[in-house]
Formats: sequence, C-alpha cells, structure tokens
Amino acid sequence: MTPEAKLQSMGLELPKLASPVANYVPFKISGNMLYLSGQGPRDPSGGAITGKVGKDVSVEAAYEHAKLVGLGLLAAAKTAAGELSRIEVVKVLGMVNAVPEFTEQPKVINGCSDLFVAVLGERGRHARSAVGMASLPMNISVEIEAVMRIHD
Amino acid sequence: MTPEAKLQSMGLELPKLASPVANYVPFKISGNMLYLSGQGPRDPSGGAITGKVGKDVSVEAAYEHAKLVGLGLLAAAKTAAGELSRIEVVKVLGMVNAVPEFTEQPKVINGCSDLFVAVLGERGRHARSAVGMASLPMNISVEIEAVMRIHD
Amino acid sequence: MTPEAKLQSMGLELPKLASPVANYVPFKISGNMLYLSGQGPRDPSGGAITGKVGKDVSVEAAYEHAKLVGLGLLAAAKTAAGELSRIEVVKVLGMVNAVPEFTEQPKVINGCSDLFVAVLGERGRHARSAVGMASLPMNISVEIEAVMRIHD
Repeated sequence: MTPEAKLQSMGLELPKLASPVANYVPFKISGNMLYLSGQGPRDPSGGAITGKVGKDVSVEAAYEHAKLVGLGLLAAAKTAAGELSRIEVVKVLGMVNAVPEFTEQPKVINGCSDLFVAVLGERGRHARSAVGMASLPMNISVEIEAVMRIHD
Repeated sequence: MTPEAKLQSMGLELPKLASPVANYVPFKISGNMLYLSGQGPRDPSGGAITGKVGKDVSVEAAYEHAKLVGLGLLAAAKTAAGELSRIEVVKVLGMVNAVPEFTEQPKVINGCSDLFVAVLGERGRHARSAVGMASLPMNISVEIEAVMRIHD
Repeated sequence: MTPEAKLQSMGLELPKLASPVANYVPFKISGNMLYLSGQGPRDPSGGAITGKVGKDVSVEAAYEHAKLVGLGLLAAAKTAAGELSRIEVVKVLGMVNAVPEFTEQPKVINGCSDLFVAVLGERGRHARSAVGMASLPMNISVEIEAVMRIHD
C-alpha cells in the first residue's frame, strides 16, 4: 500500500500546503536532503490552532494538534518529492508552547511521530527532540520542523 | 552584482567574525554543507545587544537586531566559503528571547531572512522556524543559527 | 590513544544506550551524517536528573549534567559507528531548562562540548547553539541533540 493509500485508509487527507507567514519557503532541498520549515496546527479552514499546553490545551488535545502538524509536513514533503514513497524521515524537532512546569512534551509530539510511522512504516522512524518553548508565533500550541531524505 | 557589492550598495558592512563565547567554533563544514553556530546581535564595538522582546525591546527594534545577526552569519559564511556567491541558505532557526505572551517571532526573524534574500537573491531563500525562547545567553534579544550550502 | 582509551583514562564510562521515552529512535543515519535524538542527563541507575537551572540547579551542577548528556550522546554515536575514532562532531544544540532571567547557557553546555573535545580531539570541535527552554520532558535540567559525521 502506498503511503497515500494508507492515509486514505486512515480517513486522513493532506491539507493544502500552507503559505509561509513571512519571508521564507515551506521547504528547501539540498542534495537528497529535504529541510522542512516549522509548521503549526491548522483547522480545516486553514486557521491557526492556538493555546498554551498545560493551561489552555490538554496533552490529549495537543497530541491531535501535533498530528495535524504531521499532516502539514507530509503535504510539504509530497510537494517536494512527488510521492511519499520516496520520503524517509530523519530528524524531527518538536516544540510545544507550554507553561514552565510542563513535562509531557514527548506525549504531545508523538501525535506527529505516530503519524509518520503509521503512514511511512520503517521509513517513518526518526531521531527526535521534543521540548517546551516560552512562546510560538500566533500563540500556536505546537510547532514542528523536520529533516527528511528523498530517495530515488 | 556580487553579494559583496550588493551589501556595499545597501550601505552595509560585514562585521568581524565574533569569537565564540565558549568551547565551540563559529562554523563547521561537512561535505558541501555549512553549519553555522548560533549568533546574537552585536553593536559596532562588538558588544552584545540585550533585552526581552515584548517587554524591553519592540518588534521593530528586534527586526533590526535580527538583521545584525544576519550580517554576522554572512560574515561567518564568507570566512567559510571565501566569497558569498558560493553560498546558498538552506535552513534558519530563529530564536527570539521573548515574554511568554509574545506572538510575532516571524516579524522579528524577517530581519535576518529579508537580508539574506536581498543580498543573495534566490539563493538566499530558505526553510525556517521562528520561535520564542525562555532565555538566551547574556540576555541577547535574538539568536539565530543556520545551515547553508557551499557551491563550487 | 583511541577515544575509548581516552575515556577510560579520564575515569569515564559510556552509559547503556537509553531507550527513547516515546515513538522515536536514538539516532538515524543518512549517508555519512548521523542525527542524534535529544538526550537528558541520567544518574548511574538510568533515572532522569531534573530541575530548573538558575533556581533548583546551579551552573556548576548543570555543567556536570551536560557532561553526562555528552556521555550519552557518545554512547549513541558508538552504537551507530562501531568505534568513536570514526566520529566527528558537526553541530550541537544545547537546551537548558532555565528560569527566564538565566544568561549562562554557554557555561552549562560547555560540560558537553569540553567532553567532546577532550575525547575526540580536533574532531570533537563543533558548531553550536546554547539556549534556554521554558520547559523540558520530565523536567530534566538539560537536553542536547547533535549532528555528527561518520568517517570511513
């Protein structure tokens, strides 16, 4: 099953590639490496999903937000590579907009990591850091960037 | 026009390469990839420019700080590559020393991104994350690191 | 002297490779580049070492924590490359779980950087950013991730 078919079987759809909110591009390719800009969670109409995790947003809700970010990153990767079967996830930096006493960043970012593994299988498994940020653009709850590899 | 001539036409000058404040080097090359250490903004005498954005420092002032960091990163890139025409910006991580309710990180980091595009043209366009940090060394207002590519 | 012998001469031992606390892997190799997941400091029994730097944890203690993280990263690198003589450190991102007014991130992350240079010599020297995070998983005091190069 292709990753695209897998997504469909999970009832998931790739969002339209978001326009960067400032002077940068959604991804950049160097050799066979794909560098993806940080993205935040977006609702079906494309609006930013916001809130401090540990105060306005629960871990469970933030997990779903991270999954939405994962879909956005896959959308960018598909635009870059043509098809997701060529994509291998190498490194993820998961940044949670959290209160200072928050400690469950890994559970939040699993929303994205679980999606990558479900959709891409072995090639979805990646190195990762999951950390807590003081603040994020537009007060989005989660921002995730990634380095991926494009196979021939 | 070379990037160096472009800088001159903009009335800008590359600063002297800053000495790292601890046990690391300003950049490292692996293959054709150039990894630049995070830098902060420095005044003409080389002193650190400090302050929390959203409290001590306005967005407009922080934009100028990010532009100064961009000049410092270009100075390191020129040292690494000999001339800026060989440099392509791949990925920027822009970190703003901001209060927890700050939401305009993208506008701040544009100070660096706009400079890269103005000086390097298409090769200045890059993937990016712009995020808010709880604290930064010496209380600098902005810290930016970058991955670049060195062309033959 | 091999890096492994150097470690022994310093009275240091590589810890067992920690199991990731969530859905990711300790490292990923792409070509000759090695991407290491962020790690925190662990005590001899493998437990997480926690606390806010600048409040619960002094700079001196945090330096030792960063050194422990460095040992954990070397353990992952050795697993990836077979022997540490093949490893060159390229880029370090050092993240300190600090109070908002903390300014000595570089002194803390030197605990890791000093270790890399002591054990690997010239190949241990690296580009770096050292920054302050609002929060970290399990309230660990320091988290460090790295990009390394594997030589033939």
